[in-house]
Amino acid sequence: MAANGCKGRLLSLLDYRTEKYIVAKNKTVGVLYRLIQLSIIGYIIGWVFLSKKGYQEKDEAIQSTVITKLKGVSVTNTTESGLLMWGPEDYVIPPQGEAVLFVVTNFLETPNQKLGYCAESPKVLDGLCQQDGDCEEGKLVVSGHGLMSGRCLHRDENAPGTCEIFGWCPVERKFKPQSLLTNAENVTIYIKNFIHFPKFKFSKSNILETTDVSYLKCRYDEKLHPYCPIFRLGDITARAGYNFNDMATFVRVIGIIVVYLGLPLNRRIVLHQGGSIGIQIQWDCDLDKGYSECHPQYTFTRQDITASNTIATGFNFRHARYFKNSAGESYRSLYKFYGVRFNIMVNGKAGMFNIVPTAISVGSGLALMGVGVFLCDMILLYILKNGTAYRQRKFEGSQQTPENQSGILVL
Amino acid sequence: MAANGCKGRLLSLLDYRTEKYIVAKNKTVGVLYRLIQLSIIGYIIGWVFLSKKGYQEKDEAIQSTVITKLKGVSVTNTTESGLLMWGPEDYVIPPQGEAVLFVVTNFLETPNQKLGYCAESPKVLDGLCQQDGDCEEGKLVVSGHGLMSGRCLHRDENAPGTCEIFGWCPVERKFKPQSLLTNAENVTIYIKNFIHFPKFKFSKSNILETTDVSYLKCRYDEKLHPYCPIFRLGDITARAGYNFNDMATFVRVIGIIVVYLGLPLNRRIVLHQGGSIGIQIQWDCDLDKGYSECHPQYTFTRQDITASNTIATGFNFRHARYFKNSAGESYRSLYKFYGVRFNIMVNGKAGMFNIVPTAISVGSGLALMGVGVFLCDMILLYILKNGTAYRQRKFEGSQQTPENQSGILVL
Amino acid sequence: MAANGCKGRLLSLLDYRTEKYIVAKNKTVGVLYRLIQLSIIGYIIGWVFLSKKGYQEKDEAIQSTVITKLKGVSVTNTTESGLLMWGPEDYVIPPQGEAVLFVVTNFLETPNQKLGYCAESPKVLDGLCQQDGDCEEGKLVVSGHGLMSGRCLHRDENAPGTCEIFGWCPVERKFKPQSLLTNAENVTIYIKNFIHFPKFKFSKSNILETTDVSYLKCRYDEKLHPYCPIFRLGDITARAGYNFNDMATFVRVIGIIVVYLGLPLNRRIVLHQGGSIGIQIQWDCDLDKGYSECHPQYTFTRQDITASNTIATGFNFRHARYFKNSAGESYRSLYKFYGVRFNIMVNGKAGMFNIVPTAISVGSGLALMGVGVFLCDMILLYILKNGTAYRQRKFEGSQQTPENQSGILVL
Repeated sequence: MAANGCKGRLLSLLDYRTEKYIVAKNKTVGVLYRLIQLSIIGYIIGWVFLSKKGYQEKDEAIQSTVITKLKGVSVTNTTESGLLMWGPEDYVIPPQGEAVLFVVTNFLETPNQKLGYCAESPKVLDGLCQQDGDCEEGKLVVSGHGLMSGRCLHRDENAPGTCEIFGWCPVERKFKPQSLLTNAENVTIYIKNFIHFPKFKFSKSNILETTDVSYLKCRYDEKLHPYCPIFRLGDITARAGYNFNDMATFVRVIGIIVVYLGLPLNRRIVLHQGGSIGIQIQWDCDLDKGYSECHPQYTFTRQDITASNTIATGFNFRHARYFKNSAGESYRSLYKFYGVRFNIMVNGKAGMFNIVPTAISVGSGLALMGVGVFLCDMILLYILKNGTAYRQRKFEGSQQTPENQSGILVL
Repeated sequence: MAANGCKGRLLSLLDYRTEKYIVAKNKTVGVLYRLIQLSIIGYIIGWVFLSKKGYQEKDEAIQSTVITKLKGVSVTNTTESGLLMWGPEDYVIPPQGEAVLFVVTNFLETPNQKLGYCAESPKVLDGLCQQDGDCEEGKLVVSGHGLMSGRCLHRDENAPGTCEIFGWCPVERKFKPQSLLTNAENVTIYIKNFIHFPKFKFSKSNILETTDVSYLKCRYDEKLHPYCPIFRLGDITARAGYNFNDMATFVRVIGIIVVYLGLPLNRRIVLHQGGSIGIQIQWDCDLDKGYSECHPQYTFTRQDITASNTIATGFNFRHARYFKNSAGESYRSLYKFYGVRFNIMVNGKAGMFNIVPTAISVGSGLALMGVGVFLCDMILLYILKNGTAYRQRKFEGSQQTPENQSGILVL
Repeated sequence: MAANGCKGRLLSLLDYRTEKYIVAKNKTVGVLYRLIQLSIIGYIIGWVFLSKKGYQEKDEAIQSTVITKLKGVSVTNTTESGLLMWGPEDYVIPPQGEAVLFVVTNFLETPNQKLGYCAESPKVLDGLCQQDGDCEEGKLVVSGHGLMSGRCLHRDENAPGTCEIFGWCPVERKFKPQSLLTNAENVTIYIKNFIHFPKFKFSKSNILETTDVSYLKCRYDEKLHPYCPIFRLGDITARAGYNFNDMATFVRVIGIIVVYLGLPLNRRIVLHQGGSIGIQIQWDCDLDKGYSECHPQYTFTRQDITASNTIATGFNFRHARYFKNSAGESYRSLYKFYGVRFNIMVNGKAGMFNIVPTAISVGSGLALMGVGVFLCDMILLYILKNGTAYRQRKFEGSQQTPENQSGILVL
C-alpha cells in the first residue's frame, strides 16, 4: 500500500498542470493586452534579434597589432639650414612603425647649442630684470632655460633686460612660421592591422588575401578601394574635415598686452599649429556569414578639437641631437617639431550563433509580458466599473465582503 | 464601520494568493514539461553557475603596466663595419622598456650619407630615364629618395640610366641578407606586469612574492616554471610555432619580370624578413578562491600571418644616426633594421560572489520556464485531440460554443 | 455559419484572460510573500535604477587621445660631467608627448666607449677567471658585455681576474648613487586628454572650455582646482603615497656573500631605484544631466609595488648616444637612466536614458518574483499542516487520493 501510494505519487509528477484562467469578455482590456503582446514580440524579433543580433555569442576582446610604414620624401628650404631632404626616418617619430606616430610638418632648429652663459629669452617672464639683484645667483628661472648667474644683461642702461643664465646657449628664438615640409600631404601611410578573436579562434588582417602584388599600389577610397590599406595623409585629414596644410601651418595670433614693470610688451601667442588625427579601424564581424564577410571600416576624426575648445589645440615637442667636437666637447641641435599626430585605434566585436544567449534573449523578452499582465489586471479589477465581479471570480475562496476583496498589489 | 472595512482591506493584503492550476492527466505533455524543466535547471546550474560563474560580480576593466628588460649581447661581423657588439641599448627599439618592442635581428647600414647629388636607385621605377628630359628639374621622384636635378645619368649612351637627384647620397643599396645578429635567440626578456582590478581593489604582479633572489634566474617553461617572468626569445617564437632564425632571416624570393620601356628587368622582391609576435598575458582571477590562486597564463602567437595571407608579412624600418664633421657639416648613417616585434598584451577579468548577479542569473533562468509553459499549453490545448475539453476547463466563464473558445496566443 | 464562427473566434481573441487565484487566508505565507515582493521592488528601484542606472544605455567603448607636455629644467653636478642642464627634451623619454613616459631622475654615464679589448666587469660572474683557459676564445660571456679573447687579466698572479673581452670599452662601472636631477619634482606635466563616445557622438576634453588664458597657469589640486590639467610631479607621487625624492633615490642594499672559487666576495644589490606611477583618468558621464556635468576624475597609484612584493620594484634602462671622431671612428656615451615612469590610463563610460535597457531591467527584476512565488507555494502546500486542503483547491480536477496529490516541483 505504501509502495502503491509512492508509485502513484511519482506518476502524478508526470501530470501536466496548467494555470486556470478567467475569461473576461472585456474588449478594452483585451485589445490593450494584445497590443502589449504584439509590441513585446515586435521588440524581441526586431530589436533583440535583427538589430542587436541577440542570438549570437559575442567576443569583444579583440586582439590587435598595428604596424605602420610611411613612404615619401619631403623638402625644406630655409635660410639657415639650406635645402634639406626629409625621409620617413626623419619626419616619422618614432620611426619603428607604431600605432601612434607623429609626422613632422614644420620645425624650428636652434643649431650648435653649447652649455655656457647667455641671456635668458625675453619670452620668459621670470627672466626679465631691471638690475642684478633681480637675478638671484644659483636659482632656476621659473619656466625658463637655466640657472641664473646673478647678472642682469641690458642693451642700454634704461631698457629692461634679461637675466644671464647658465644653460644650453644660445636659447631658442621666437618662432617664425617657416620651414614647412612641402609634399608632406602626399606621403602615404601603409597600415597593417592583424586582429584575432580568441573566443572564436578567428584571425584576419585588413590586407586582402590576394597574390596580385599590384593590389598594394592602391590608395584608400571609401567607394573605389574600401579595402585598400594605403592612405594619403592629405586624404586622411580631408576625411576628418580639415585641410592638411591648414592643420600644419595655421597660426592663430592673439595680441595680448602684458604689463610688466609698467612697460607694455606686445606679445603674440601661437595657438594652432599641428594637431591630432584619430584613425579608427572598426571590425564588426558576423561570423555566421563567413570569413570573407568580415571587413574593417575606417573612420577619421580630428581628436584635439572639441565643441568650443580653443586653448587646447596644437601639438609640438622638442628633440635634441647631440654631437661632440674634436676636443670631445658636447654640443647639440635643438629641434622644435610641429606636426600631426596619427593615432590608430582598433575596435571590434565578433558574433556567432549560440543557444545560450538566444535562450536568455527570448526568456528576458517574455518576462516582460508579466508587466503587461500586471497592468491589464489592475485596469480590469480596480479601474473598470464591474471590477468587483471580476475580483470575485479571479480570487476564489475569499469569504470577505466585496469591499474587503482588495487584492491590491497582487502582481 | 469605515475604519473596520479599511482594516479588513489591509489584512486581506496579507492573504497569500496562489494561482489555480488545472491538472491534465496527460503523460505526454507532462513528461515533456518535466524534461524542459530539468534542462532549464541543468542549464542554470551547469552553464550559468559552474561554467560561467553567474553568481559572481565581474570586473573586466583591468589596469595593467608592463615593464620589459632585455639581457644579452649579440655580435655581427660584416665586411664593411667589421666586428660589432650589440647590447640591449642598440638592438631593442625603443630602449625604455615598453610593452611593444622591436628586436633587431638583421640590418643594412648605409654609412656616411651626405646631402648632395647622386644617381637615384635603379629600384625606383620613377627614377629610370633615357634622356635628361625624363628627369624634370625640381620635381620629387615618386617613391624615390630626392629631388631631380634634371640630368639623366648613364653608364654608356645606349643603356637606360637613372635620374640624378639631390638627397642623402649615396642612396641605399639593394639588400643582401647578411649581418645577422648571432645569439639573438638566446637573449632573455624579463617581463614585469603589474595589474589592478579597481572594483575589488585587488593588485598583483606576475612575479612571485618570494624573497629568494635565485628565483629570478629561472627561464619560463609551461610545465617546470609556469610563473617565471623571464623568457628566452628563441623559446617565445618556438611556442608561437616558428623558428627564431627562420623568422629573422628567411627570404622568399619571387622573380618578377617587369617590362619597362620595352626592357625586361629581373627584379626580386624580398617578402619575409622579420615578423611580429604577440605575448598574451591572461589573468582570470576567481577572487573567491583567494589571492594566491590568481595566476597569469602566457600564450604566444605570430601576429603578422593570417590564414592565407602572404603579402603582408615581414617587418622592417629605417633609422638614421646623425653626426657632424669638424667643419660642422652634417652626415648620417642610415640603418635599415629587420627584426621581430614583440607585443605584450594584457587581458583579464576577476570575479567575486555577489548577491545581485546571482539573483539576475536565477531570475532570468527561471523566466525561461515561461517558454516551456507556453509550448506545453499549445500542445495540450490545440494539438492533442481532447484539447477542447481542456480548454473549457482552463478558461472559466467563457460562454461561447466550443469552436469559438480559441484562446490562440494566450501565452 | 463558417464565416460567423471565424468572426466569433477572432473576437474571442480580444477577450482578456486573467489567471485564477486561490486565496489562502494564511498570514505567515502572506507576510513572507509581501516581504519578498517589497525587497524585489526595493532592489529594482534602489540598486538597478538609482545605483546602477539600469534605465540608461551604456557606452563603454571610450576613444581617447592623450598628449603630454612637460615643463621645467633640472640641474646635475657631477665630478665627471660637471654642471649639466636638463630640459624636457633630455629627461623625458620618449620626447614626443606619449601617454607612457619616463622621467629621468638619476643617471650613470660611461663616456667615450669604443669597440676594443678590455677587462670584463667583475660584477659578471661568468667573466671571472683564474687562468686563460677559463676564457674560451670567441665565446660570449653569459650576462656579460662581449666576446672573450681567451686571455685572463689579473692585477697580480694570485688574485682572481676577469676575462678580457671584445666589446664597448671601458665597460660600465658599478653604480654609485649620484647625479640626482635636482628640481625634478617641481617639473610640471600638462595632460591633454580628448575623449569620444561613439555611440552618443559625445566628445569632450579634460581642459575647461574657457577663453581665460590664465586658467592654464593653475596646478591640479583635488579640492581647489579639480579640473586643472597641469600636475606637479612631486604632487603626483605624493598623492600616490610616496615621496618623489625617495622614489628617485632610495637605495636598498642587501649584502650577499657570494662564495665563488672559495673566495667570499662582498656584493651589494641595488634594488629600489625609480618606479612606476599610474595616472588614471576616469570619465563617468551621465549624459542625461548634460554636457557640463561630465568631468574627469584623477587617481594616482604606484604600480610597481604590490602587497608584499619587493624584488620587482625599480626601473632603469640603458641608452647610447653615438658619435664619430674626425677619423670617422665610432664611439659612444652609454647612459644608464633611473627614473619614474608615468602611465596615463583613460577609462570611462557614458550612459543615456533608453527604453530598451529600462524594459530589460524591469522585466528581469519582475521575473525574480517567480522565485518568491515558488518559495511561498512550497511552504503553503507542503510545509504547513493544512497543505493538503490547499493542494486540493489549487490543483483542480485531480481525482487521486489526497496523499497522491503531490504536485512536487510544480514551479
